[in-house]
Amino acid sequence: MRFLVTGGAGFIGSHFCDSALARGHEVAAYDDMSRGSELFIKDALTKEKFCLVRGDIRELSQLTEAFGQTQYDWVVHFAANADVRQGLERPRRDLDYNTTGTWNVLEAARLGGCKKILFSSTGSVYGEPKIFPTPEDAPFPEQTSLYGASKLAGEALISAYAHGYGFTGLVFRFVSILGPRYSHGHIFDFMRQLTQNPERLKVLGDGQQNKSYLHVDDLMNGLWQEIETATPGFQVRNIGHSESLTVRKSIDTIIGRLGLKPALEFSGGERGWIGDSPRILLDTQRLRSNGWAPKRTLEASVTDTVDYLRANPELLARS
Amino acid sequence: MRFLVTGGAGFIGSHFCDSALARGHEVAAYDDMSRGSELFIKDALTKEKFCLVRGDIRELSQLTEAFGQTQYDWVVHFAANADVRQGLERPRRDLDYNTTGTWNVLEAARLGGCKKILFSSTGSVYGEPKIFPTPEDAPFPEQTSLYGASKLAGEALISAYAHGYGFTGLVFRFVSILGPRYSHGHIFDFMRQLTQNPERLKVLGDGQQNKSYLHVDDLMNGLWQEIETATPGFQVRNIGHSESLTVRKSIDTIIGRLGLKPALEFSGGERGWIGDSPRILLDTQRLRSNGWAPKRTLEASVTDTVDYLRANPELLARS
Repeated sequence: MRFLVTGGAGFIGSHFCDSALARGHEVAAYDDMSRGSELFIKDALTKEKFCLVRGDIRELSQLTEAFGQTQYDWVVHFAANADVRQGLERPRRDLDYNTTGTWNVLEAARLGGCKKILFSSTGSVYGEPKIFPTPEDAPFPEQTSLYGASKLAGEALISAYAHGYGFTGLVFRFVSILGPRYSHGHIFDFMRQLTQNPERLKVLGDGQQNKSYLHVDDLMNGLWQEIETATPGFQVRNIGHSESLTVRKSIDTIIGRLGLKPALEFSGGERGWIGDSPRILLDTQRLRSNGWAPKRTLEASVTDTVDYLRANPELLARS
Repeated sequence: MRFLVTGGAGFIGSHFCDSALARGHEVAAYDDMSRGSELFIKDALTKEKFCLVRGDIRELSQLTEAFGQTQYDWVVHFAANADVRQGLERPRRDLDYNTTGTWNVLEAARLGGCKKILFSSTGSVYGEPKIFPTPEDAPFPEQTSLYGASKLAGEALISAYAHGYGFTGLVFRFVSILGPRYSHGHIFDFMRQLTQNPERLKVLGDGQQNKSYLHVDDLMNGLWQEIETATPGFQVRNIGHSESLTVRKSIDTIIGRLGLKPALEFSGGERGWIGDSPRILLDTQRLRSNGWAPKRTLEASVTDTVDYLRANPELLARS
């Protein structure tokens, strides 16, 4: 099959490209290279069935041109603003990238005759849920961040395209993903701080935020399971580990692996920032009923991430 | 208090302006006059405490200028694309008006120091619900129309602004509203057809779509009840009658009132159009627990609407 992968040079997108190539598919990575990296697609670039298309999801014309090049079977849409914390300082950004950007991807796909889309949504769309683990059909949620709001809007557009134009819409609500090429999130922040000063670590919140994570290899297995069995219509799947970790526990794993003993400074409060959900644990029964289960523990996933960042210190220097 | 009312020259918005003026408030109607009408604000325009600001919600700069004129206490946001049926022919329109337009209103309000917003959302955000009457915390819905998706996104933005910037966000999910100045919807379509040919009436769907409606006077009472008791934070309220009407029954009321006996031609199918929800009945317990109850029956509301359109035939000639 032919895949166009937005954000295909980013952390998760590049893993998807690699896994698609390994399965014999043709892949075009569509990326503006603002967060993506040539490093992540180094192997892919050596493959005949891979190409990189430089483009911005905020530009419908660029997307339309990309979809005009080849008849794609699937668009796999990872490109997004994933910087959740700074939403309130730049309140238009989530809307532009994650909502209008998703509409641009859908519309360009439709105009190009591609009617299957996989979308990387987020457990953040549940706001601060009252049910744990949180199922896909949890009570109508209240959005607590511009990021969650913008991703919810992206999901809704995909659903409307599925109903209105016959798209196959496969929406995954991700927890935070870990593993090689990880380049954003609390482990990244902690590693960066510890590189600059191994004796002190500032932590947002009280350290008791308790969240599920998932290794990127386990994510890929889940995505492929659903792609390979997809039927027309709109489907939502939570994806995340059934374990969760407190921030405090994940610090212990990180500093244990690094052999450091920094003094910890907690900013305090239940949430790391406004819109942070203190607890994330998703019910993945839908995905599990089709056979999927994660193979890595969360501790092994954190360790793997630490090892990767240690081996690639130039990533920590990126802004 | 001072109110800025987007869509203030439209059907519902102009009623809101009148009711605010009657309560002694100052009101600016912000309207691009694309669907609004000078006819609807004829009385308001004679009042000293009223002004009309011509502007488009798609233009942030125009909104910012409007919010810069006066320190408003509330923005009441009715301006929207309400043409649900043609979403699939113009798939960008709902996004521009109802999602980005709502963001523009929120952001201009924030920049202008106005932190209370009332938003006219829709029962369409429930998609095709399985629970009737449908409560506000129904299971996470699946969007079946671009209109519903765009309004859900508008709600989500308001919720994120409430959590992130301390807004008071009051979201009402409306059923279809009836009464004087009604200028859009199935009664409008039927009256227009019968004006052109009193002997034949084409009906979208099988006529069994069963929906709740509400008279605009009852709507106003509900909105004011909640404005006058609003507390900071995000609140959602369904608003609609506990009765519902089939399209078939509403036709009987209309043709009975007009003294006509047209031949009926049903296009067939459970839905009038793609994305039409065959059944809408909202649980209004939240609103009722604060005292609100509709005073008009649905039959009286339909009759009142028919009488109004008969007395104002020029409205039926509008595109």
